[in-house]
Amino acid sequence: MSEPAAPGGVNRSRLEFLFDGVFAIAMTLLVLDLRVPEGLARAAPAPLWHALAHDAPTFLAYLLSFAVLGVLWYRHHQLFRALQRPTLLAFVLHLVMMAAAAFFPFTASLIGRYPGNPAAVTVYAACIAVYQWCSFLVWVSAARQGALDPALAASELQKRRRRLLRGSLALTAIFLISIARCFL
Amino acid sequence: MSEPAAPGGVNRSRLEFLFDGVFAIAMTLLVLDLRVPEGLARAAPAPLWHALAHDAPTFLAYLLSFAVLGVLWYRHHQLFRALQRPTLLAFVLHLVMMAAAAFFPFTASLIGRYPGNPAAVTVYAACIAVYQWCSFLVWVSAARQGALDPALAASELQKRRRRLLRGSLALTAIFLISIARCFL
Amino acid sequence: MSEPAAPGGVNRSRLEFLFDGVFAIAMTLLVLDLRVPEGLARAAPAPLWHALAHDAPTFLAYLLSFAVLGVLWYRHHQLFRALQRPTLLAFVLHLVMMAAAAFFPFTASLIGRYPGNPAAVTVYAACIAVYQWCSFLVWVSAARQGALDPALAASELQKRRRRLLRGSLALTAIFLISIARCFL
Amino acid sequence: MSEPAAPGGVNRSRLEFLFDGVFAIAMTLLVLDLRVPEGLARAAPAPLWHALAHDAPTFLAYLLSFAVLGVLWYRHHQLFRALQRPTLLAFVLHLVMMAAAAFFPFTASLIGRYPGNPAAVTVYAACIAVYQWCSFLVWVSAARQGALDPALAASELQKRRRRLLRGSLALTAIFLISIARCFL
Repeated sequence: MSEPAAPGGVNRSRLEFLFDGVFAIAMTLLVLDLRVPEGLARAAPAPLWHALAHDAPTFLAYLLSFAVLGVLWYRHHQLFRALQRPTLLAFVLHLVMMAAAAFFPFTASLIGRYPGNPAAVTVYAACIAVYQWCSFLVWVSAARQGALDPALAASELQKRRRRLLRGSLALTAIFLISIARCFL
Repeated sequence: MSEPAAPGGVNRSRLEFLFDGVFAIAMTLLVLDLRVPEGLARAAPAPLWHALAHDAPTFLAYLLSFAVLGVLWYRHHQLFRALQRPTLLAFVLHLVMMAAAAFFPFTASLIGRYPGNPAAVTVYAACIAVYQWCSFLVWVSAARQGALDPALAASELQKRRRRLLRGSLALTAIFLISIARCFL
Repeated sequence: MSEPAAPGGVNRSRLEFLFDGVFAIAMTLLVLDLRVPEGLARAAPAPLWHALAHDAPTFLAYLLSFAVLGVLWYRHHQLFRALQRPTLLAFVLHLVMMAAAAFFPFTASLIGRYPGNPAAVTVYAACIAVYQWCSFLVWVSAARQGALDPALAASELQKRRRRLLRGSLALTAIFLISIARCFL
Repeated sequence: MSEPAAPGGVNRSRLEFLFDGVFAIAMTLLVLDLRVPEGLARAAPAPLWHALAHDAPTFLAYLLSFAVLGVLWYRHHQLFRALQRPTLLAFVLHLVMMAAAAFFPFTASLIGRYPGNPAAVTVYAACIAVYQWCSFLVWVSAARQGALDPALAASELQKRRRRLLRGSLALTAIFLISIARCFL
């Protein structure tokens, strides 16, 4: 609360809090997509198993969504640990990242309903690609503005910058391939 | 937790927490409005694109809602940084602000479904206007009760008071114009 | 995090966090009850106003729910400030309070749909009465176990105990009257 | 924020926060399953009572879900208090625990709709068994990696390890019995 903040920048712990809140909600929201089967015999297990098995793609989409959001959260955790003073630009980029994370359950649900459909894969890859590019930009802009932990060695800074760039490029490639598969 | 609080006032970090929680939820809630298209061919991309394109206003309403809530959160962040001891009045005003923020996804959804309809614009402007007036009142009442950061210069106090007032008046004007367009 | 905790008791700030999280979600959840009217003319304001006016009880239920949850949160804030070490019993009572708070949007929605119906009033009063009795028991048990702030004077302790008891009795009375109105 | 973290591990308070956020949301989410009865006489209490009584299993499922999540949260609270530096493995296990907790409302809702159905009991027991095994593994791996509070005596460590193992075995037994009842 009494942390120093960059002029125009935002309080580090408050931004962390908002970000984690959005992730916690996005992680829990997909469960609303799971529907308890209706109108089956109360005591017989077989029809209930069949009904649940029929919804298996939705369950897998739920697990997939949870796993991807978990990985994204972990990577953000590593990025944010080095970010000492979030600037206004970092806040705007975080806002886009949060919008992508909150949008993610819809995306995972879409891929659960239309597995293998190039249109669903395109939306899915676009959502994570936007998130990745913003992560990369947070890192690059923070490095330029001297907002990163000064204890980090220059080689470490560059290594992590490259890793973020590789992730962003990989997802952009997946996005471009799947969009090409839609229209070719 | 052990911060001094004004008599009858509320704990600063707990109010901040509740406020951020409501914002994180409001930001993520609109995604529930997005529906995965049903009953389409599994593998063909074209019908899925058309179905998604048909829901474009809902997607835009989602992004708009996220952006406006992000701006409101950022402005509150600047206001709250200067507010050292939230009084009971500040808590009540924050409650109204939280009700407006939580109501906002509905409002944005309404404007997504009825773009340009003066009734939707009226509800939308009213919601943000209520929020803005409460922000302004938090600032004015805190300044009177000496609950603001004493390090702030008098000129800075006045500059920020004027900015909050301008924002409130601008939204009231939009509200009045759109309500006039409804009934004239 | 490194606060001392009563043996078997819970970490004060973590309980506070969970409690505030449940309140923030309960406050924001009722908005899901509000439905954007469907199938109306896009640009004409009059039908949209009529549709929104028709849902007025739901909007009022939303505001009512927000106001009551705000008052309950504020009172809990005052209680919790004095509670230094939450015991296991205090945790269990908080769990019941959280269940009542999370149940509250349903209750408010019920009264919005059936205003004046004694059955709805009974459920509504029962929900708040349960919450109030738990608040009272948290206070009484904490006072017995010496878990309250030692800086509080004995007269203050007694004054607040009486106030909590009065609130619980008042809501029990409303509950009994409305249940009598159901069956007499 | 400036806590030391294991290399590759995660910030303790941020993980705690994400975990509590998921629990708060899971606890509040089941209320969405409760539906306000529609189309009844506005003022007559009898039909409303009957409609509410008809939904009694859903209400019981809500209370059951809240109670179980409360117990799981309390146990996690005890485990986490001893966990000083969450490792990467502990984070992954927490992610699975959070996925199980977020899945829990669906599970409780299933058992509310199909009480006594062995298929519903199987899913329910599987969800808690997964959670329990992860708790056990967090404890065992943290003990091996020296990430637990060094103030804990070896006998206490072993006692708590056994208790976690017993819980995991008990739930696995319930799971196996109910799955046998499905197919025998």
